[in-house]
Amino acid sequence: MTQLSSAKDGIITDEMKTVAAQERLQPEEIRALIASGRVLIPKNLNRNFTPRGIGKRLKTKVNANLGTSGDHFELEDELKKLKAAQDAGADSVMDLSTGGDLAEMRKAIIENSELMVGTVPIYGVATELSRRDMDITVMTADMLFEEIERQCEEGVDFITVHCGVTQRSASFADSSKRVGGIVSRGGSLLSAWIRKNKKENPLYTDYDRLLKIAYKHDVTLSLGDGLRPGAIADATDQAQIEELLIIGELTRKAREKGVQVMVEGPGHVPLNQIKANMQLQQRICDEAPFYVLGPLTTDCAPGYDHITAAIGGAIAAAEGADFLCVVTPAEHLCLPSPEDIYTGVMGTRIAAHSGDIVKGVGGAWEQSLEMSKCRKRLDWEGMFKYALDPEMAKKRREISKGSEKEVCTMCGKLCAVNLHNITA
Amino acid sequence: MTQLSSAKDGIITDEMKTVAAQERLQPEEIRALIASGRVLIPKNLNRNFTPRGIGKRLKTKVNANLGTSGDHFELEDELKKLKAAQDAGADSVMDLSTGGDLAEMRKAIIENSELMVGTVPIYGVATELSRRDMDITVMTADMLFEEIERQCEEGVDFITVHCGVTQRSASFADSSKRVGGIVSRGGSLLSAWIRKNKKENPLYTDYDRLLKIAYKHDVTLSLGDGLRPGAIADATDQAQIEELLIIGELTRKAREKGVQVMVEGPGHVPLNQIKANMQLQQRICDEAPFYVLGPLTTDCAPGYDHITAAIGGAIAAAEGADFLCVVTPAEHLCLPSPEDIYTGVMGTRIAAHSGDIVKGVGGAWEQSLEMSKCRKRLDWEGMFKYALDPEMAKKRREISKGSEKEVCTMCGKLCAVNLHNITA
Repeated sequence: MTQLSSAKDGIITDEMKTVAAQERLQPEEIRALIASGRVLIPKNLNRNFTPRGIGKRLKTKVNANLGTSGDHFELEDELKKLKAAQDAGADSVMDLSTGGDLAEMRKAIIENSELMVGTVPIYGVATELSRRDMDITVMTADMLFEEIERQCEEGVDFITVHCGVTQRSASFADSSKRVGGIVSRGGSLLSAWIRKNKKENPLYTDYDRLLKIAYKHDVTLSLGDGLRPGAIADATDQAQIEELLIIGELTRKAREKGVQVMVEGPGHVPLNQIKANMQLQQRICDEAPFYVLGPLTTDCAPGYDHITAAIGGAIAAAEGADFLCVVTPAEHLCLPSPEDIYTGVMGTRIAAHSGDIVKGVGGAWEQSLEMSKCRKRLDWEGMFKYALDPEMAKKRREISKGSEKEVCTMCGKLCAVNLHNITA
Repeated sequence: MTQLSSAKDGIITDEMKTVAAQERLQPEEIRALIASGRVLIPKNLNRNFTPRGIGKRLKTKVNANLGTSGDHFELEDELKKLKAAQDAGADSVMDLSTGGDLAEMRKAIIENSELMVGTVPIYGVATELSRRDMDITVMTADMLFEEIERQCEEGVDFITVHCGVTQRSASFADSSKRVGGIVSRGGSLLSAWIRKNKKENPLYTDYDRLLKIAYKHDVTLSLGDGLRPGAIADATDQAQIEELLIIGELTRKAREKGVQVMVEGPGHVPLNQIKANMQLQQRICDEAPFYVLGPLTTDCAPGYDHITAAIGGAIAAAEGADFLCVVTPAEHLCLPSPEDIYTGVMGTRIAAHSGDIVKGVGGAWEQSLEMSKCRKRLDWEGMFKYALDPEMAKKRREISKGSEKEVCTMCGKLCAVNLHNITA
């Protein structure tokens, strides 16, 4: 039984009770939201950890990407990144490794993570082929499905599968039509495979095989946006929307089979197209939980893309995105360090919190209100308590203590709050 | 003659020609925009520097706040902060000093700044009174106007004057009606003065005196939002909007007298109220250039308010704000360091750039497009060229060079862009 099939059968699982308590909703509300496909609890049947829910009426969740590359693959560094993500308050991690012993990395992450763990199984196939000096085009459907099955058996909670990259949809991402082409690794691998083999994407044609594997382990499918725009100029284009339409169909099929499913979204999107993107996904995919990467609101900020992503992510969350993927300051430049992961998670949490204030979920409004009350009474311990990063706030205040105890060194004696308190 | 009175008389000044060239508009377009009050060129008649314009159809501009406090007042540090602001690409600085020898600080900033310089003259009066162990309530109207006149003679290009804090508007900011009370220093000082003296704000009652001083030196008035919300829960409340209505009237009066005028705005505003705030200001103040602080979209991120402000600032810019004030990571905690100023300016520039992409101004869309083309061809020198902070992008790439020269260490051999380039 999956969380979805249980919910459809009217069963409230322990996981639903846990999530209900976290979100201050009734277990029956959670069950109904899951049954309708609007909420997920990604948790492999083989894993044991405190689950979290993703979707409508819940707090917006945050995922941090970990993973090695061919240029850097130290297990110890990956575990440091995992710790950084957890310390910073992420809700999930994805192991996107493409370098070193992938099975070993994945095993270590799954064992050490207190959070849900996601992967992109095609990376395993591509990495192995690359190691043997072969390219992705020699991949067989069996190789891909066997890798998926192996990872599901190992205990991953959700997998990104780029089922919507088809001959037709990928053709719209040709360089002749796009500035940025394809920037998703999975999308790029599958489109190369499709083009060379002149065949349809096996994840699309053999989708039922995928559903069976996912159902068996209650692994949540994250329908990847292999054709997401990688440039502001490509946002909301035909390739992206063609893929979304396919994903909408596949979402309905997964739900019918009792498989939990979410949808991945862009990417690089100008400010004035984010709302439309959120509405489109919610309509086309029947309010399936939406997992977005950014979106980045300009292409021009390498080194600061955690900020660019926070801008887009906040608007996305406010307009209905349920799950934000962290973008770190390393994006577009290099593999992130543990510090980058920490900074990225914090930026994304600010975006999620800003969205949750207007969504009216997860107690975000109340937290902001309590923070403001503490500010008004210059109650520093209270301010630390309600801060998204209490340690950072404490540290900054500590290193800059002024002569006046109550106020801060920005205004000192001329503190507006203090003056208003004593005169009004 | 001020820029505004010249524009009204059909005269195209050298400053208008400079701004037209910067913004790739015709000098006559700039003149007409200034004549209508929708564009400003803040530049004191006594100062000599390359001016920049602020307002409709122009690139969104960025201001960095400098200044000492009673707890920290080193001239050398202020000059470092000025350099950091300039290096990071700010368009203007404000000297908000309230500690040390204020006249000396101001003189040094004015002499050394390549950018327009703004101040808040009431801080000078309050600091001097505080030094003599007196409080703001003993201030006379003459003390305030004389300080304003002195600073205008010294060469400041724009001044924040909280003319809209009146007996009536300030009464709505009482703690009984608001969570955060008054958080603007100028607003707090004037409301304390009004309450104690049971008199109206001299900046409001003697507004004509202010206009005469401003006209004489062509100092731009920045009508301060002394009652801006300092808590998400206080956004768009009666105090804020009452003050805005007064500011709207004063905007029209200033324009009639040939005095350049802009309007300051919030503050702490939830995501779903930012657009309404921008529309309201543009309607009430007849599209006077709008200068906003943030807005911050959550109260809960002390230590990261440069990110929170980037979220709100981007939406504000896209919806019509013309001038964004930098919020640094030190906000709500301590006086910022030069590094904080640099980081804050970068975050605010990302917000401005994101807004400019959708406003269609300042070549932001084109810059983003060129960046994406460079990404597609893996042209790193080109990417650095179009980055908002080329040095940061270069540095990060340098310290993480991989074995594959063309790609980066995030994906290495599995670079999606490269794969798409060679297979599509």
